[in-house]
Amino acid sequence: MAERTTLEATVQALYESKKYTVLREILNTMQPFDIAATFASLDGASLPLLFRLLPKQLAAETFVEMEPEEQELLIRGFSDAELKEVIDELYVDDAVDIIEEMPANVVSRILNQADPEMRKTINDILKYPEDSAGSIMTTEYVSLRPAMTAEEAIKRIRRTGVDKETIYTCYVTDENRHLLGYITLKSLLLADEDALVSDMMGEDIISAATTDDQEEVANNLSKYDLNAMPVVDKENRLVGIITIDDAIDVIEEETTEDMGIMAGISPTDKPYLRMSPWELWKARIPWLILLMISATFTGMIISSFEDALASVVILTAYIPMLMGTGGNSGSQASVTVIRALSLGDLDFSDLFRVVWKEMRVSLLCGVSLAAACFLKLIFIDAAILAMEITIPVAAVVSLTLLMTVIMAKLVGCVLPMLAQKLGFDPAVMASPFITTIVDALSLILYFQAASMLLGL
Amino acid sequence: MAERTTLEATVQALYESKKYTVLREILNTMQPFDIAATFASLDGASLPLLFRLLPKQLAAETFVEMEPEEQELLIRGFSDAELKEVIDELYVDDAVDIIEEMPANVVSRILNQADPEMRKTINDILKYPEDSAGSIMTTEYVSLRPAMTAEEAIKRIRRTGVDKETIYTCYVTDENRHLLGYITLKSLLLADEDALVSDMMGEDIISAATTDDQEEVANNLSKYDLNAMPVVDKENRLVGIITIDDAIDVIEEETTEDMGIMAGISPTDKPYLRMSPWELWKARIPWLILLMISATFTGMIISSFEDALASVVILTAYIPMLMGTGGNSGSQASVTVIRALSLGDLDFSDLFRVVWKEMRVSLLCGVSLAAACFLKLIFIDAAILAMEITIPVAAVVSLTLLMTVIMAKLVGCVLPMLAQKLGFDPAVMASPFITTIVDALSLILYFQAASMLLGL
Repeated sequence: MAERTTLEATVQALYESKKYTVLREILNTMQPFDIAATFASLDGASLPLLFRLLPKQLAAETFVEMEPEEQELLIRGFSDAELKEVIDELYVDDAVDIIEEMPANVVSRILNQADPEMRKTINDILKYPEDSAGSIMTTEYVSLRPAMTAEEAIKRIRRTGVDKETIYTCYVTDENRHLLGYITLKSLLLADEDALVSDMMGEDIISAATTDDQEEVANNLSKYDLNAMPVVDKENRLVGIITIDDAIDVIEEETTEDMGIMAGISPTDKPYLRMSPWELWKARIPWLILLMISATFTGMIISSFEDALASVVILTAYIPMLMGTGGNSGSQASVTVIRALSLGDLDFSDLFRVVWKEMRVSLLCGVSLAAACFLKLIFIDAAILAMEITIPVAAVVSLTLLMTVIMAKLVGCVLPMLAQKLGFDPAVMASPFITTIVDALSLILYFQAASMLLGL
Repeated sequence: MAERTTLEATVQALYESKKYTVLREILNTMQPFDIAATFASLDGASLPLLFRLLPKQLAAETFVEMEPEEQELLIRGFSDAELKEVIDELYVDDAVDIIEEMPANVVSRILNQADPEMRKTINDILKYPEDSAGSIMTTEYVSLRPAMTAEEAIKRIRRTGVDKETIYTCYVTDENRHLLGYITLKSLLLADEDALVSDMMGEDIISAATTDDQEEVANNLSKYDLNAMPVVDKENRLVGIITIDDAIDVIEEETTEDMGIMAGISPTDKPYLRMSPWELWKARIPWLILLMISATFTGMIISSFEDALASVVILTAYIPMLMGTGGNSGSQASVTVIRALSLGDLDFSDLFRVVWKEMRVSLLCGVSLAAACFLKLIFIDAAILAMEITIPVAAVVSLTLLMTVIMAKLVGCVLPMLAQKLGFDPAVMASPFITTIVDALSLILYFQAASMLLGL
């Protein structure tokens, strides 16, 4: 990062002193990602000129790494010829990603400049539902025929490979594009020249349907250590591929989204520093309002036990501890379960195993916490801090703690699994939501225990 | 997942009826990951026999996907010859991963069976610090010389490529192994036969040092869309490579760890269903105990305002709401910042931008929440639920809410950035820790506001 800042300053200074030749040399040694980051930190007005300094291929690669705002700015400044030049260099999946973020008039300019075949492909991909395998695939793959020899296959790769997103895994299809198998360039290259593709290809194909969820597809690419995964239509015809670099982007994007949802933030796909305070407010306020309103229940529970609290005021002092421990016990279970669900390590059929495991864990945690709490109340809070704690009060607090931990862990593990079963995102069930339920239940347990043991 | 269960039942039944030929056919069509998962669900006693049904290559690939317990069980049952056969098929980085999980006597058996060169390499890699680039790299890469032609390079790849972890990106070194550049198999294959490697190779090398943190390296592989990254020593000599599939494993592992830490769970690398209740207890209890004890502060604050609470009992009813909203506001900010830090989108130099942004967001969130809260207290809690709320009480609660949200968001964004600056994992600063601080501060704000506005 320190390096990038210096580079930004250098680029800025060279731009201002109009040393374009030097600037071109520097940009040529940089990675597209870093060029885009450097451009983003500079004044928008310098963007068109700087971008035009890049050679064709690097320009297109940098364009893909930019944020939608800058892409739009550039496109609006491009002549039709310039726009065409960039679009011709793009892979179809990247072109689709860009188009999805642009306003309608920019989209029609882009489509007008794309060659007819690419335009058709883009339109096809745009029809797939958001977050589906079809919407993130590219159609630039190498297809081979089963009757080819290794030599013929390599020749075909040499001839057609330049524009393909990957040539390292090739797909074997029949004349109607039905997917028959896959073969890596490694096996082609290491094989005898006369060896037949049909004899060498793998037939244990792991493929995705166009409508599969992108997260599941990305997890499978990772699980099976694939470089690319074929995407097929309902008739098992090959329509595209998803490469590992796109899968990683999906994994990181979905993880960011999950973490946000768990913390009560509506998903957005803008990076944090790019979001205005208003946009951040819009993403965060709904859950805050919802939680504030749902806290009415805890308020009502407390005010209905007003008399009990007034007679043994010390009970109030332990409400935050009980609710905090409950909330945290619950999120330990829910976060563990949500992560395992999203990695595909768990599904609904494991519900009873999970509940049985959490029952035992919560008993262990609950008993050890309650014991520690009882001792702390007697030997620290009462003896040292001189709080008004009797043995029955300590018993009420510790017993409630035990029950709260057990209840919180069960709620925490069951709710995300139920949510997934019902077709919701399990992450929604994490901390904020579970905390509200656990808060209310733990207060009820507390006042019940108090009324029984202290006779209130 | 449903499919896997059925497959498990089939394998189990075939095993019990000793239909080994059919079993071998079925296993041969399966992916290593799925074979390992199926074996894991069966009785351990059947493992050695089932494993021996697999052909050599598939056996080694399946072995890599297994959990340490099963790997150990198998190794203990292997003859020396069988062990050697599996080890010979392993990539060095996988062998190292396995060895790191085994007890000493198993490790020495493995090293004894490895051929001398592999043994030396394993011992070298084991010396790198845990979670460093050196500890996850493999030494099985293709190196080329600058003076080679494309044809000679491809010949060399054909001759030496079979045991390499990837042949798709090759590294160009001088006679002392200094890294000069990289070249993809794609450019070699598409180039003229006589083209020189030195003319075609990329010199804008992105490499890792052996001591670099694995998470940073994995993020760079993803950021720059690389298939592999070279690892160099202090003299810029090439010592190994890290491939994208290993990078994804690192990314997923670090994410799981981060999510766990944020929820107050000590990191483990065992999957959830594999952990015994005792192991889960050990991972979860430390934070729970710590939080219970730190809640002493909130307890002390409340009991020091006992008299005030006794005179306006309704104030107690809003403690959970204030603390809950504070905790949630704080974790919205902290989770956002922690994720941006771990993706490399933010670093400490952005501190003031982040604070300035969060100040504005927290003002927006705080004002809108406080307004909503004031209206709710007057028109719902007082009017409909008949709680004893006066305008000054509603003002105290709403004003506290506003201040709590601002304070929580600032604490939530600053603490993780400070933690990273000081060399701690920012994730440790997430919910549980921040919640404790925010809880205590919000209570102090509450009672201050109450004593000023209600004259307590």
